[in-house]
Amino acid sequence: MSKKDFVEKITAMEDDFAQWYTDVVKQAQLVDYGSVRGTMIIKPYGFALWENMRDELDRQIKETGHTNVYFPLFIPESLLQKEKDHVEGFAPEVAWVTHGGDEELGERICVRPTSEVLFCEYYSNNIHSYRDLPMLYNQWSNVVRWEKTTRPFLRSLEFLWQEGHTAHAAHEDAAEETERMLNVYNDVCENHLAIPMIKGYKTEKEKFAGAKYTMTIESLMHDGKALQAGTSHLFGTGFAEAFDIQYLDEDGNQQYVHQTSWGITTRLIGALIMVHGDNRGLVIPPRIAPTQVMIVPIAQHKEGVLDKAYDLRDQLAKIARVDIDASDKMPGWKFNECEMKGYPVRVEIGPKDIEKGQVVLVRRDTGEKEFVPMDQVEERLPALLEEIQQNLFDKALKHREEKTSVATNMEEFQQILDEKPGFIKAMWCGDVACEEKIKEDTMATSRCIPFEQEKVSEACVCCGKEAKEMVYWARAY
Amino acid sequence: MSKKDFVEKITAMEDDFAQWYTDVVKQAQLVDYGSVRGTMIIKPYGFALWENMRDELDRQIKETGHTNVYFPLFIPESLLQKEKDHVEGFAPEVAWVTHGGDEELGERICVRPTSEVLFCEYYSNNIHSYRDLPMLYNQWSNVVRWEKTTRPFLRSLEFLWQEGHTAHAAHEDAAEETERMLNVYNDVCENHLAIPMIKGYKTEKEKFAGAKYTMTIESLMHDGKALQAGTSHLFGTGFAEAFDIQYLDEDGNQQYVHQTSWGITTRLIGALIMVHGDNRGLVIPPRIAPTQVMIVPIAQHKEGVLDKAYDLRDQLAKIARVDIDASDKMPGWKFNECEMKGYPVRVEIGPKDIEKGQVVLVRRDTGEKEFVPMDQVEERLPALLEEIQQNLFDKALKHREEKTSVATNMEEFQQILDEKPGFIKAMWCGDVACEEKIKEDTMATSRCIPFEQEKVSEACVCCGKEAKEMVYWARAY
Repeated sequence: MSKKDFVEKITAMEDDFAQWYTDVVKQAQLVDYGSVRGTMIIKPYGFALWENMRDELDRQIKETGHTNVYFPLFIPESLLQKEKDHVEGFAPEVAWVTHGGDEELGERICVRPTSEVLFCEYYSNNIHSYRDLPMLYNQWSNVVRWEKTTRPFLRSLEFLWQEGHTAHAAHEDAAEETERMLNVYNDVCENHLAIPMIKGYKTEKEKFAGAKYTMTIESLMHDGKALQAGTSHLFGTGFAEAFDIQYLDEDGNQQYVHQTSWGITTRLIGALIMVHGDNRGLVIPPRIAPTQVMIVPIAQHKEGVLDKAYDLRDQLAKIARVDIDASDKMPGWKFNECEMKGYPVRVEIGPKDIEKGQVVLVRRDTGEKEFVPMDQVEERLPALLEEIQQNLFDKALKHREEKTSVATNMEEFQQILDEKPGFIKAMWCGDVACEEKIKEDTMATSRCIPFEQEKVSEACVCCGKEAKEMVYWARAY
Repeated sequence: MSKKDFVEKITAMEDDFAQWYTDVVKQAQLVDYGSVRGTMIIKPYGFALWENMRDELDRQIKETGHTNVYFPLFIPESLLQKEKDHVEGFAPEVAWVTHGGDEELGERICVRPTSEVLFCEYYSNNIHSYRDLPMLYNQWSNVVRWEKTTRPFLRSLEFLWQEGHTAHAAHEDAAEETERMLNVYNDVCENHLAIPMIKGYKTEKEKFAGAKYTMTIESLMHDGKALQAGTSHLFGTGFAEAFDIQYLDEDGNQQYVHQTSWGITTRLIGALIMVHGDNRGLVIPPRIAPTQVMIVPIAQHKEGVLDKAYDLRDQLAKIARVDIDASDKMPGWKFNECEMKGYPVRVEIGPKDIEKGQVVLVRRDTGEKEFVPMDQVEERLPALLEEIQQNLFDKALKHREEKTSVATNMEEFQQILDEKPGFIKAMWCGDVACEEKIKEDTMATSRCIPFEQEKVSEACVCCGKEAKEMVYWARAY
């Protein structure tokens, strides 16, 4: 018997959330570990999930006027060092190539942790006039960051992502772009991944190395920890000055370009798992599910059952991504696998159903069963998938709201973390010293200064001085 | 004025083919050079070409039952060394990572030149029973080979490709798979890229490092040099023995799996350029053209012209990938750019055409003009695109046939290379000594032992001993 003949039990998330996560990514066949510490193999089911997220995001990136390009994996060390803040942020976690074949290289080469400096050098050589602007580039690629502790999808030595890099004539254009792409990310996350987001600014301490400001979308996982889902950075003219990216404006004056960059990574798959999953495994939102409907024949050895099941598969294939499990495993085993993989709908069809001219639709999100006449299933199924999509979002939003608390002093702050961990809304004076003290004392970090501000109290939660703004805080992935 | 306001003249291919190639890739905005020697930036137009090839190939890879995965960029040195022939073939051109951040690594890490060893290790851990087979994986990724001399697309330090890796229960299954994927490549190249191919086996000397045999599709460029467009390798059980990849068969016996791998790379873009291009620039086959139709308004300042041109764009967008150049450049400049970019059809529309209720369709491949009544253009255009697609293939096939010669001795062989370089069909005794002598004396290599054999003479072209088979020879990229 093959290992594949068993679905092993997974740890309950209440007992050990980290172990639950590890069990799910393994049992649902999403990843395996690579040979080099901290690298991961993305298996067929995990990669199909990524392809669906990627394709939707790629569609929206193109729809907003961007074109895809591909820049090299390798960056000379001297080029990385051109922008001071940037190199300080990234150099400690760079993988260095020192030899090509037998030859020792004259200059070390960096395996890209991100590609700002390559795009900047390109822009410097290729932007001359206002007519060349805006330049709206995106690339899908792998990047490497030499992390000490790693976990599949959440933090790995190598991950997949897209990185957008744009150059604009005016500050306003770049600022609009930064927000436009944050909104694209927000749309993909909320409307396709069914994960509700908080939009806001990163603090000075947490912003991207080299950016003027960073916008972020933040989400809350099942265990009350936050996860940054996507960021969009406004660079202003900082990189343009370091790399001499100038253009001749309409009045014949040399001007620096205004730049942005923005990225989303395979860690979104981690968010998907930790927002929707449960103790039976994954729960995948229909819009990005590689398999939306799995047909499980019951008593398939009986005459006519498999024929009917395959007919149903062919019929439903026109309206959904549908598959059939006609293997010789027991239905109970197949049900477990459907749940582990998180297929939105399981369709059962057996001799009794055929007799009654019906099928059974079983929702993964609620476990509810529906008996649907065969001739109505084509009408019912798309509506059901939409209901599931909406329900997953609503559930996640409700969960986030339940786990969002207000703290007006550090005692409350700590108590919330101990008793009901989640997002903490608290006022902040704007001083990095308070931000650092909070992190040191509680391990919670500032997640964002939300666009939608509320005045939850008068004074900074940490120092008690006059508050400038409300901040979302949480322990985070 | 911006650099983009000029289309610079390109070198004629008759004068200097290599320079013509370099001029075209630069002027048609396909690539730029990266900062690390031998790396390339694939610009929007070049990447859009790659996306179209990739999407068609990906569709066929999935249609033939394969799933996409993603394996790590990094391979430990010890793992690379597990299969003797394989490491000998690749180690000399590997880029080595020796440091992660400030830490010196205990073992050097190889940046993948290809991923056989990673897939083998995975298969060794994940294949247990005959029920796990076949395992049909593919990945789209970047790979690095430390080449001494490089040229955009044709030979670069880093390139993009797909690599398929499969494991099967029986030799016949693996052999069928090897041929199936060669046929998929052949279909994409002939029917989408319009490049005719010769299918055959590589010789022992030219086969993939670690393979039992390698199948290849070979094409002929405009200058009479050959280019290997895609290869498909049968491994037999060689890797399985080195990596201990065994499965329990239906009778309860342990068996080694039979493996294949197959790949196609961004160098196909180089083939596309050198097969269809001419002295005015690129010529792109309609099926993979990012822009199939470019509308150029004539006298666009006159009332109604731009409106009509945009209406036409909207109308044609339903049936083709269409764009409009409504910039303030002169029509002559726009025509030149259309030719440089190789758009299959240019549509001209001006005041006189509007008066007559017609548009002008200009073919890139032949330069022919057609005046088509406005109400027939939707019918005419798709047919015209198909004619162009077919004509490009026919022209390339005719060209290849004209440049394919037979040699029965080395004098003829050398004379052909001097006077009419192209494919040389010549008999071979099967001895690697002759193959090496031919390469040393003429710089021509064996391209393939074609599936379709002909007996063009009795004796080996080199040593005069009894011939075993007919071989295609050529100088090659």
